[in-house]
Amino acid sequence: MGKNFDAVYKERADAVETALDKYVTLKNNYQSKIYEAMRYSLLGGGKRLRGVLCLTGGLLAGGAEKDVMPFACAMEMIHTYSLVHDDLPAMDNDDMRRGKLTCHKKFDEATAILAGDALLNGAFELMLKSKGRESDTLKAMEIIAEASGTEGMIGGQTVDLMCEGKEISKDLLLYLHRHKTGALISAALLSGYVACGGKNEGTAVLREYAEKIGLAFQVVDDILDITGDEKTLGKPIGSDNKNHKNTFIGFMGLDGSKEYAKELSAAAAETVKGLGEEGKFLAWLAEYLCDRKF
Amino acid sequence: MGKNFDAVYKERADAVETALDKYVTLKNNYQSKIYEAMRYSLLGGGKRLRGVLCLTGGLLAGGAEKDVMPFACAMEMIHTYSLVHDDLPAMDNDDMRRGKLTCHKKFDEATAILAGDALLNGAFELMLKSKGRESDTLKAMEIIAEASGTEGMIGGQTVDLMCEGKEISKDLLLYLHRHKTGALISAALLSGYVACGGKNEGTAVLREYAEKIGLAFQVVDDILDITGDEKTLGKPIGSDNKNHKNTFIGFMGLDGSKEYAKELSAAAAETVKGLGEEGKFLAWLAEYLCDRKF
Repeated sequence: MGKNFDAVYKERADAVETALDKYVTLKNNYQSKIYEAMRYSLLGGGKRLRGVLCLTGGLLAGGAEKDVMPFACAMEMIHTYSLVHDDLPAMDNDDMRRGKLTCHKKFDEATAILAGDALLNGAFELMLKSKGRESDTLKAMEIIAEASGTEGMIGGQTVDLMCEGKEISKDLLLYLHRHKTGALISAALLSGYVACGGKNEGTAVLREYAEKIGLAFQVVDDILDITGDEKTLGKPIGSDNKNHKNTFIGFMGLDGSKEYAKELSAAAAETVKGLGEEGKFLAWLAEYLCDRKF
Repeated sequence: MGKNFDAVYKERADAVETALDKYVTLKNNYQSKIYEAMRYSLLGGGKRLRGVLCLTGGLLAGGAEKDVMPFACAMEMIHTYSLVHDDLPAMDNDDMRRGKLTCHKKFDEATAILAGDALLNGAFELMLKSKGRESDTLKAMEIIAEASGTEGMIGGQTVDLMCEGKEISKDLLLYLHRHKTGALISAALLSGYVACGGKNEGTAVLREYAEKIGLAFQVVDDILDITGDEKTLGKPIGSDNKNHKNTFIGFMGLDGSKEYAKELSAAAAETVKGLGEEGKFLAWLAEYLCDRKF
């Protein structure tokens, strides 16, 4: 790639941000408020990890950035909708997200419910307008829809709610996070790859890599909820404790969790080392996610 | 069709019900609660108007019932998700729906939010698994996604919330209902037609018919909120007044509204009279919707 991977990440994240701004425009009609609320929550924040993974998947399959961009943006829209709904008073009741007020605090609960719905629906509208080969589009959408559904993210959120304040096994904690966070991270990379015609034999390695970084990502989330800086993080620390969440810290302590995240990211990096320059980028990304401060 | 249209409607509605029961199964895993909540709200109630329209669209295009069924069920899932979220305390705060407790009353608010999300997401999962021609599937999904999005149903819900307790023009009331209810009714018929390979030249007539019955449907809804029987209706009457909703009654009185609904349904029936037996069924349906008691 001829430049450092930090710059590559930033370039891809910025490209996703620019495309989101273009796809989800403010419309001057009677329902302009819904576009305001969607854009408020969607733009100007977030690491764009899922978008970057999706773009990278597309590039790995030999696709062009513009062809995979609708899927990358759809991933970010689905991720944002899940945050908007998760933050609602009936769910985690959080006031701050990405360094600003949550959607229901900035607007109101009804608008936040509708804005979340609109982001999920809009993600599918966007993918349906993509211009790739029809069979690839359908396959990529299927990967994403399954990962965000009841056997993926929504399933994980359901388990999360049921487990609050209860002691659970480490197996159930892993199950929860594989569904709640891991499924979408995995789908990001795979859907990009498949949307650009990536062959079936390539998917196993990508899935293995994504599962490992998805888990590492969650372990680091739990660590940051204790050791993080609120300003850098953009949300209050200690919210897991407030919401009586089960975390990796509870099972393996802070040092043990740090060690576990490192092991996972090293193992993830190992799986992709044969995949050329994009593989090197993914290996770097695994380490980077482990060291992140936000 | 060789039988009366009441029986045809019932047969199609029952087929949709049976298919929904099969598609949205209860799973015995950690997140079984989400399937319970989805099934609770989805099954055992509802007129299945959107499902029946979608099947009829498919039959009009020469398709088989089984080919269009995933789209018919997706329409019902999207309709149900919108009701589950609309009933939430932050939205219309309704306790009864389809003759039983609303989802958040039966379960809790968090579960109702997730169950709504899951029904919307599940609708797309279901359509993506349909076995029709890829280009037809994508086109039908696009019709549905647009109709349920910010320029369709969600747009209408947004306008509805903004207009509560305010005096609005008749034009805005029409805009509101064309988006909130009309868009999905229209998409039901058109998506079924397109999913089964229906030709472009057939869509204008179906769109005109659907727009008219969509509006008539809403006018009758407003009438039933005053004259209806709570038990037959399955929800309390007078809720428009309680929620300070603008209704057709406010603009044209009860008798004027009845007259308007009749005119719309007669005009709708007129548009489809050249479409053979299925056209006759649609014409009957327009009158039937006007005379409905629930």
